[in-house]
Amino acid sequence: VELKKPYLVFLGDVGSSAVVKTGQGLVDWCPSDVLGQLRLPGCEMDLGIPDLSIQDAVSGGARSLVIGIAPDGGRIQDGWVETLAEAARSGLDIVSGLHSRLEDHEPIRVAAAESSVNLVNVRSYQRDFDVGTGAKRSGKRVLTVGTDCALGKKYTAMTLARVLKDRGLNASFRATGQTGIMISGGGIPIDAMIGDFISGAAEHLSPSAAHDHWDVIEGQGSLFHPAYAAVTLGLVHGSQPDAMVLCHDPCRTHVDGYPDFPLPSLPTAIRRYEEAARLTNPNATVVGVSLNTSRLDDADARRAVAEAQADTGLACTDPVRFGAELLADALVQSQR
Amino acid sequence: VELKKPYLVFLGDVGSSAVVKTGQGLVDWCPSDVLGQLRLPGCEMDLGIPDLSIQDAVSGGARSLVIGIAPDGGRIQDGWVETLAEAARSGLDIVSGLHSRLEDHEPIRVAAAESSVNLVNVRSYQRDFDVGTGAKRSGKRVLTVGTDCALGKKYTAMTLARVLKDRGLNASFRATGQTGIMISGGGIPIDAMIGDFISGAAEHLSPSAAHDHWDVIEGQGSLFHPAYAAVTLGLVHGSQPDAMVLCHDPCRTHVDGYPDFPLPSLPTAIRRYEEAARLTNPNATVVGVSLNTSRLDDADARRAVAEAQADTGLACTDPVRFGAELLADALVQSQR
Repeated sequence: VELKKPYLVFLGDVGSSAVVKTGQGLVDWCPSDVLGQLRLPGCEMDLGIPDLSIQDAVSGGARSLVIGIAPDGGRIQDGWVETLAEAARSGLDIVSGLHSRLEDHEPIRVAAAESSVNLVNVRSYQRDFDVGTGAKRSGKRVLTVGTDCALGKKYTAMTLARVLKDRGLNASFRATGQTGIMISGGGIPIDAMIGDFISGAAEHLSPSAAHDHWDVIEGQGSLFHPAYAAVTLGLVHGSQPDAMVLCHDPCRTHVDGYPDFPLPSLPTAIRRYEEAARLTNPNATVVGVSLNTSRLDDADARRAVAEAQADTGLACTDPVRFGAELLADALVQSQR
Repeated sequence: VELKKPYLVFLGDVGSSAVVKTGQGLVDWCPSDVLGQLRLPGCEMDLGIPDLSIQDAVSGGARSLVIGIAPDGGRIQDGWVETLAEAARSGLDIVSGLHSRLEDHEPIRVAAAESSVNLVNVRSYQRDFDVGTGAKRSGKRVLTVGTDCALGKKYTAMTLARVLKDRGLNASFRATGQTGIMISGGGIPIDAMIGDFISGAAEHLSPSAAHDHWDVIEGQGSLFHPAYAAVTLGLVHGSQPDAMVLCHDPCRTHVDGYPDFPLPSLPTAIRRYEEAARLTNPNATVVGVSLNTSRLDDADARRAVAEAQADTGLACTDPVRFGAELLADALVQSQR
């Protein structure tokens, strides 16, 4: 997927209960790519950025309207269709991470065809990839992996990529999920791929690069998840990571939503990820642990970090709370 | 996928070099479901079954025409389209395992719509499944797994299911690939599923059953394959196998087509499959080894079987050469 920046973020007419994860992520992570927000009457959300009409946004140089919210049910709402069609007629690409497809709405489809703009459904994006080759690619790769879903793999990868760049290193964030793709403007929604092509898509995502270049790849799912481990393994194999950062939530005892599936210990998780990754990169090593301590107070967070460090002997931190410097140090050190 | 039997097998106009794996598989495995073959002028293949016209087949009770050959390129040939359309007009479902889709050919699509018959593209079949739940299902399951692709997982599963039934046990073969689906008349082409839904599809394939019932599930790919391990892991997790049979070709030293990927030893493969499967079934155990000794003479085959038995301490045989009785014994024994 390739997206055209800068963006106008669409918030629709949602009340205060909807999820603005995508819109907030864009404002947090690529504020200079976001010209403003478009809110319909009744919208109670505010990203704290300028309110723009479609025409204001186009005059200001916007190239895409991005749907920045996930309403209950995750579908495009009838009340949005005319506005989205108007945006398309005005020359903006329309980008959606929702479950329903933009082209299933006749006015949007017609408007896009007439103005030759793209309708990008990030969640259901599909194209043909070759199957994985396993062939070694040049450059360095680090992949975030996890004991479970939704505990910081994207955030850890984005923070780590930023720290590496701040240090003057040659690094790229590689997005594999919809929010990461919208933030970075490109990537591959790896969980939308047909099974046989997952590792091939992951190979395509991080192509050969300069020997000192780091691809920082957003992980997906978990090897310990009864539904999503397949995607995780294909991503691990195709990424050929030299290094991995293990993400974990110390307050979680079992797979989220699966009470019968206890999480592995950190040493077990490390062993299993290294074992899996060494199929395509015999040097693959977990170099650090990223804890999500958002449910702990500061003292408990420091205690959790110290415990994880003692358990694993690896650099450990919560990148939200304490920054990702330690992880960047461990990463650079691991390749000496 | 559910297919309507009996079949008329279509061999087209292929010369002697084309692959008749599907047609031959049907004749070998479900001869009573195959009424005859339909050959166009120029066809040099012969399955040794009656030549039937479409009308003969329909009068004889045929309900589907199955494309039994894979021409070079794996596509439906222009010269076949009129015959396939005529079969559809005559009331036969059309079943294809080829890469191109039946409905992409206008005359076939129109004929099928007019006569309300089904066009079944087994290879690209997709429907919505729920994601895997990991919930324990009643009944017993055995899954064939492999050190590589294409070394006997389907054959081993079908032979084992047949032996179990011959012993009066309650058993079903569960197909996960196109040839197996055509033979058994149903199943799910697991490698055509979107990554997030692989384990959910596998759960759907072998639903809860009587406590003494065995689902004998056809494995796919290999955990040691740089392209296909994702599908394998999802199938392992969703199948929740109580038992696994490890399939191996003793003449193969590396993954077929991937010279840089050596095959694992049998003990390593056993350990890794048990480790993976125990996420969803803590009792999952490899109970036997199925060797494909087709490239060895009889003496060397016996030697290979003895070596594998010594290496693993498990029941070992080549089911093609020596029958699957030993594997059935080991399976039944394992659940005592």
